[in-house]
Amino acid sequence: MPKLSPLAPSEFPALSPIAGIVLGGDNCGIRYKNKKDLFLAELAPGSTVAGVFTRSKTASAPVEWCRKALRGGKVRAVVVNSGNSNAFTGSGGVASVKRTVDKAAKVVGCKPGEIFIASTGVIGEPLPDEKITEALAGLRAKLDAGAWRAGADAIMTTDTFAKGATATAKIGGTTVTINGIAKGSGMIAPDMATMLAFIFTDAKIPADALQAILVRANDRSFNAITVDGDTSTSDTVLVCATGQADHPKTSGPSDAKLRGFRAALETVMRDLALQIVRDGEGAEKLVTITVTGAASAKAARTIGFSIANSPLVKTAIAGQDANWGRIVMAVGKAGEKADRDKLAISIGGVRVAAKGVRVPDYDEAPIAEHMKGREIAIEVDVGVGQGQATVWTCDLTHGYIDINADYRT
Amino acid sequence: MPKLSPLAPSEFPALSPIAGIVLGGDNCGIRYKNKKDLFLAELAPGSTVAGVFTRSKTASAPVEWCRKALRGGKVRAVVVNSGNSNAFTGSGGVASVKRTVDKAAKVVGCKPGEIFIASTGVIGEPLPDEKITEALAGLRAKLDAGAWRAGADAIMTTDTFAKGATATAKIGGTTVTINGIAKGSGMIAPDMATMLAFIFTDAKIPADALQAILVRANDRSFNAITVDGDTSTSDTVLVCATGQADHPKTSGPSDAKLRGFRAALETVMRDLALQIVRDGEGAEKLVTITVTGAASAKAARTIGFSIANSPLVKTAIAGQDANWGRIVMAVGKAGEKADRDKLAISIGGVRVAAKGVRVPDYDEAPIAEHMKGREIAIEVDVGVGQGQATVWTCDLTHGYIDINADYRT
Repeated sequence: MPKLSPLAPSEFPALSPIAGIVLGGDNCGIRYKNKKDLFLAELAPGSTVAGVFTRSKTASAPVEWCRKALRGGKVRAVVVNSGNSNAFTGSGGVASVKRTVDKAAKVVGCKPGEIFIASTGVIGEPLPDEKITEALAGLRAKLDAGAWRAGADAIMTTDTFAKGATATAKIGGTTVTINGIAKGSGMIAPDMATMLAFIFTDAKIPADALQAILVRANDRSFNAITVDGDTSTSDTVLVCATGQADHPKTSGPSDAKLRGFRAALETVMRDLALQIVRDGEGAEKLVTITVTGAASAKAARTIGFSIANSPLVKTAIAGQDANWGRIVMAVGKAGEKADRDKLAISIGGVRVAAKGVRVPDYDEAPIAEHMKGREIAIEVDVGVGQGQATVWTCDLTHGYIDINADYRT
Repeated sequence: MPKLSPLAPSEFPALSPIAGIVLGGDNCGIRYKNKKDLFLAELAPGSTVAGVFTRSKTASAPVEWCRKALRGGKVRAVVVNSGNSNAFTGSGGVASVKRTVDKAAKVVGCKPGEIFIASTGVIGEPLPDEKITEALAGLRAKLDAGAWRAGADAIMTTDTFAKGATATAKIGGTTVTINGIAKGSGMIAPDMATMLAFIFTDAKIPADALQAILVRANDRSFNAITVDGDTSTSDTVLVCATGQADHPKTSGPSDAKLRGFRAALETVMRDLALQIVRDGEGAEKLVTITVTGAASAKAARTIGFSIANSPLVKTAIAGQDANWGRIVMAVGKAGEKADRDKLAISIGGVRVAAKGVRVPDYDEAPIAEHMKGREIAIEVDVGVGQGQATVWTCDLTHGYIDINADYRT
């Protein structure tokens, strides 16, 4: 077992039951012996679903299945296995998906198109899907409304802690709950980091509105984090809404009645996203990068990621070095408009550079103190417009090399 | 002094004199005490020049000067200092450039617009240009035609070895020589990697034709390498042609008489570019990545760089792990068209995966042997077209973290 990330939250949060969902996790022996590796969530009839997936051009067979199933907008079960990602497995992998969803549909009593699946783990090895299909009926019999932690455990690979988050919101006076679990970005030898998140709510929101709300929240959460800039073939975020809450009908994703729900979903997703960064391989520091003054929000985000993915910036942070020269470099290489002679940089809230040069009375002492902490704040104003964005990353340490350069065993 | 890269060539090559150029290197005390830090090359009247520069949006003052001077197409001297990059130095930096070129023009006896300069080293600190201007006349008096090694030494920062390359070509029966020196990508605390290369020839080629030939060769050399994907504010490649060789006139960059010259220039530039990769921070292995079957050459190059810049791929190589799953991931995240079910990957010339799955008779032994070597070859066919490209990188090791995460002293 890898040692617990120093950035881990103190405990797994208390997640309340949500009307219309039961869930659970178990071991079915795909790869691990002493760890749950199969997750099942069953949702009441009428549940809607939204999803976003990896942009990888070599997406896994389960991702392709979910993309297709999403067109129906309905979900009755989510099946996730850890230990094998069923990626780069050719037509055999597609057949594995088919057998798994067919079996799950039979066990739950629904159409295959209402089953969503995800797989995470080694790639390029055939998925022993018979272990999943044989275990599904037994697992279903044990599902309950409170097994959030078991579910979070079952989707982990080399995560060093289980990830959960929760929030509530009012829709027209009625309280709804949003619970989420996630995994990432621990590596599983010999393969790749995968980010998975499954979010559940009792709100009653049509699939198309839910999708629009998810996409917006995703941009400010899972799409605003990076550990090493690499992208898995399996990244999946699903939101399932059971519709069991008794609140007034809503008119679309921008309905004012959904303001609280939109904010709460973003809160849950950002919480999970930051937990993933906190579990970045070898991470010692959580880094928040805020870019302002860019030509557009998109440009700000590109600049933010250029900084967040720069190995030179990330190693400087690991070395507790307030190396603003590398930040200038990363702004420059982003390719977005920036005014070198108006550039301003703050670290830990202290101005380091302004108007394109180091501030005249630069005092490194308070910044050096900030760099010793677990949470680092970098603010950059590029001086050309009103666009802004915040992205999160972690530092690049010897731990990252240890984890990822290990000889395969 | 950092220890010599294990990938360093056995010795600095023998570079012959080139008619119309004298050069030299000296210490003028900018930052280093025991290392040459000032380079001067003087070229005969009538010499032409071509150049390519960083794409950074925060380019340094010397880069901006060279871009402007390049419009004249004429060069009489190249002045380079190491120890201070004169980047992010605001209007003071621009004034430093002006004083330096004015003084160099006076010493050499030419127009300021015929002086090209470059600076590499710490950023954000005022360049003590008086040390350069005071030293120029003395250095000029000592220039000679054979001081290539001294020149290469003077432009180094934390490079672990001096970089030079040479080739000859025939133009219409007359032999011309091409010599080049380069520096990179060693870091200089507290700042950034900079790549500089200065190439000289006695060929007689008009500036516009020389520029076209340079751009083409650059795409297959300096623009085809990466150490960590980061880009300096100061990257500069200049080609200076003294025109002293007595060969027939040529009609443009595509003139058949220049075929040999074009190839020789590319050879020199690729040689220097690979020396830069061989001196990548912490590099233990030189990695050649060849992508075929892409939608276009540009797409192939994007995919190549996605693999070459992937921390997961680079750490796997450091770990001597033939982790083709991470290569699949990097192909997918490149965003270029790729057919997952036609993807083929070879490592060290041995096929690992074909038609989207691991080859049935996969034998890791010969590949594991290849991974232990100093030079790693990865070939990827993405199965959609005819585009191809080759890029070079190094592995990502603990040495990289050691060098770049060091506390500033």
